Amino acid sequence: MDKHPLLLINNGLSIVSAKKGEHYNGLIVHTAFQLHVEGPAVLIAVNKNNLTHDYIQSCRSFTLSILEKEAPMSLIKLFGFQSGREVDKFAQVEYDLGKNGLPYVLSNTLAYIETHVIHTFEVAAATLFLGRVINSRLLKEEEPLSLYYYHFVKKGAFPKTSPLYFEDTIYFG
Amino acid sequence: MDKHPLLLINNGLSIVSAKKGEHYNGLIVHTAFQLHVEGPAVLIAVNKNNLTHDYIQSCRSFTLSILEKEAPMSLIKLFGFQSGREVDKFAQVEYDLGKNGLPYVLSNTLAYIETHVIHTFEVAAATLFLGRVINSRLLKEEEPLSLYYYHFVKKGAFPKTSPLYFEDTIYFG
Repeated sequence: MDKHPLLLINNGLSIVSAKKGEHYNGLIVHTAFQLHVEGPAVLIAVNKNNLTHDYIQSCRSFTLSILEKEAPMSLIKLFGFQSGREVDKFAQVEYDLGKNGLPYVLSNTLAYIETHVIHTFEVAAATLFLGRVINSRLLKEEEPLSLYYYHFVKKGAFPKTSPLYFEDTIYFG
Repeated sequence: MDKHPLLLINNGLSIVSAKKGEHYNGLIVHTAFQLHVEGPAVLIAVNKNNLTHDYIQSCRSFTLSILEKEAPMSLIKLFGFQSGREVDKFAQVEYDLGKNGLPYVLSNTLAYIETHVIHTFEVAAATLFLGRVINSRLLKEEEPLSLYYYHFVKKGAFPKTSPLYFEDTIYFG
């Protein structure tokens, strides 16, 4: 497998969850980082075609469930390669609800971070959502999953819509 | 050391470099992720007080040098805890110049990614710089440094201006 330099920006993988009405959905991102905006905040990028994008715009909140290294590929496939338009993802995992009313995943996650969206920015096919952290909790003390471990150790692939999908790299789903 | 949930967003560490006139400078960020904007792009956040922020605005470009796990603390202190207003950082490391005219660090880096800035966004004390990737190259095939490894294995600290500096967490510089 080619080590494309962009793959070496070794970010962590998290499930981003949101809701619309009483429907929950989520997807996996490696596009999240911490900021300080009058207190702790998180910036994430989500592709506009994803159902979760619609849900975040609807509820103006998102929660990150930070994945552990040993998160099974079945969980990654469910949240990373399937659409909430076809599958009820949260019907297939254990979850609880946080203070912002959104689900966080209980199995295979190390911590969750709950936010309220305070600003959005448009970037081509994605929206950047800036979330003010309103609550967070550690569930397990272990090393989180990173892109490097996901791709080069677990041999995880990226969907064609991902900025990490390169045509000259061999992927397997 | 407390494992604050925000610390578990397990992003990679890179040196961001830029120039003003013939002066080079750089700093370490964990606030970078990949996007797709008519081709590969990288979004980074840089605090407005940092000299590198001024340099990126001046040259409208930045380069990421992706750090390896075994990058020595002396390199991290130089680029992460000292100011280019007081120290000529690039006088103390081996570097080469890329196609965008900016230096990339040769020792302890795995790959470099050169960009031209195509958009900026203001977020409180930071600016988000969106860089279109114009060139990138792999130098060494190893696992990159992540926040988790930096903080919990190497026992690395964060400066007080970092969104990862928490008063209830014990740091050592």
